[in-house]
Amino acid sequence: MNDIHVLPVRGIPEIETGDDLGRIICDALADLVVAQDVVVVAQKIVSKAEGRRVPAADRRDAAIAESAQILRRAGDMIISETRHGFVCANAGVDASNVPRDEVLLLPVDPDLSARRIRGAIERRLGTPVGVVVADTFGRAWRLGQTNVAIGIAGFDPFVDYRGRLDASGRELTATRICVADEIAAAAEMVMGKTSDIPVAIVRGAPVSWGRGSARAIVRPHGEDLFR
Amino acid sequence: MNDIHVLPVRGIPEIETGDDLGRIICDALADLVVAQDVVVVAQKIVSKAEGRRVPAADRRDAAIAESAQILRRAGDMIISETRHGFVCANAGVDASNVPRDEVLLLPVDPDLSARRIRGAIERRLGTPVGVVVADTFGRAWRLGQTNVAIGIAGFDPFVDYRGRLDASGRELTATRICVADEIAAAAEMVMGKTSDIPVAIVRGAPVSWGRGSARAIVRPHGEDLFR
Repeated sequence: MNDIHVLPVRGIPEIETGDDLGRIICDALADLVVAQDVVVVAQKIVSKAEGRRVPAADRRDAAIAESAQILRRAGDMIISETRHGFVCANAGVDASNVPRDEVLLLPVDPDLSARRIRGAIERRLGTPVGVVVADTFGRAWRLGQTNVAIGIAGFDPFVDYRGRLDASGRELTATRICVADEIAAAAEMVMGKTSDIPVAIVRGAPVSWGRGSARAIVRPHGEDLFR
Repeated sequence: MNDIHVLPVRGIPEIETGDDLGRIICDALADLVVAQDVVVVAQKIVSKAEGRRVPAADRRDAAIAESAQILRRAGDMIISETRHGFVCANAGVDASNVPRDEVLLLPVDPDLSARRIRGAIERRLGTPVGVVVADTFGRAWRLGQTNVAIGIAGFDPFVDYRGRLDASGRELTATRICVADEIAAAAEMVMGKTSDIPVAIVRGAPVSWGRGSARAIVRPHGEDLFR
């Protein structure tokens, strides 16, 4: 295993609806990115560029409208499954780092958003990379939030050890690491919440290159013990 | 925000019951570690050093005995709350990278294990660091596992943005990042599962130094919507 570097990407301006996010990210990445980096992009700027804005007054209705199924309610908050299949608070509808009269919805298809950014980087910079669109989710039994991957392009979200042998020669039976979420989590540490760093590079992650989708991370209903 | 580096720590031998894990880790860290690094140690070698071994044949009974409460059963697997409060599969009882006739239990007090390792590093190397004891947990609604912190010494597991202002001057209301779990996740990427790298360094993480405990990450029962 090699070292991993996590690098903040500076110089991303406030993103407006309709902005060419791929071009803007390329401008900021140009002197930094190298082949096989994973570029992690905060959901917030993807949603802003895609115009996924609703009036702040409609926040609660928007969370319900964005939900495929509501799992729990607690005060003002709902825990629901989004139309993508992600289980999170308020269907990902979020007010932080957004103009005061607006809230943001998740991108309609974050995998597609990731693929578009990846395409722009390959086309403009000639650099093959992975892309993660990352959002900040809570967890059922652990306090605090961590970043997870809601969109992926260019690599398999999992490192699958099933069938491989451990150091004792015993077959690993149940270990499949969601490296995409670990990449998102690592990137969060340089992105912060009050700073203007919505993009980071994770260099050296042990990913399998190729097609990948964050939808593949969603646990199928039939295997869900906590619904 | 600065760069973050994640470094594998090589040269840790197979750990036997009663080994002085602090000394062994110090020997491997000596030329690598600097002040304010976070040293991430795989639960497996902590459990081995602490003799938390039971015969593999007793695996199922051990998982039940290690559980304070069983939340769900699915085939051979249970999802339970350990006596520490962690919710995970089989109470953390694990057979990977363990001699064939044994399984490992979680450390009795992983925060104490972390404090001991931290104390050894400060005493022997004179280097103030944070320590995380990390294990690999599944998630309720997401496939694949990620590493999380089950023991912490020397820093606050959270970066708390509640009350701070975002870039628009709006107060962040609900964002408390579990940076300890993000550190554990980042470290997993250099530790792997089939390799002999049970220790990693995370350098540059945005932590608050001081007392810290992984028990603080456990969501209190009264706030748990998914039990």
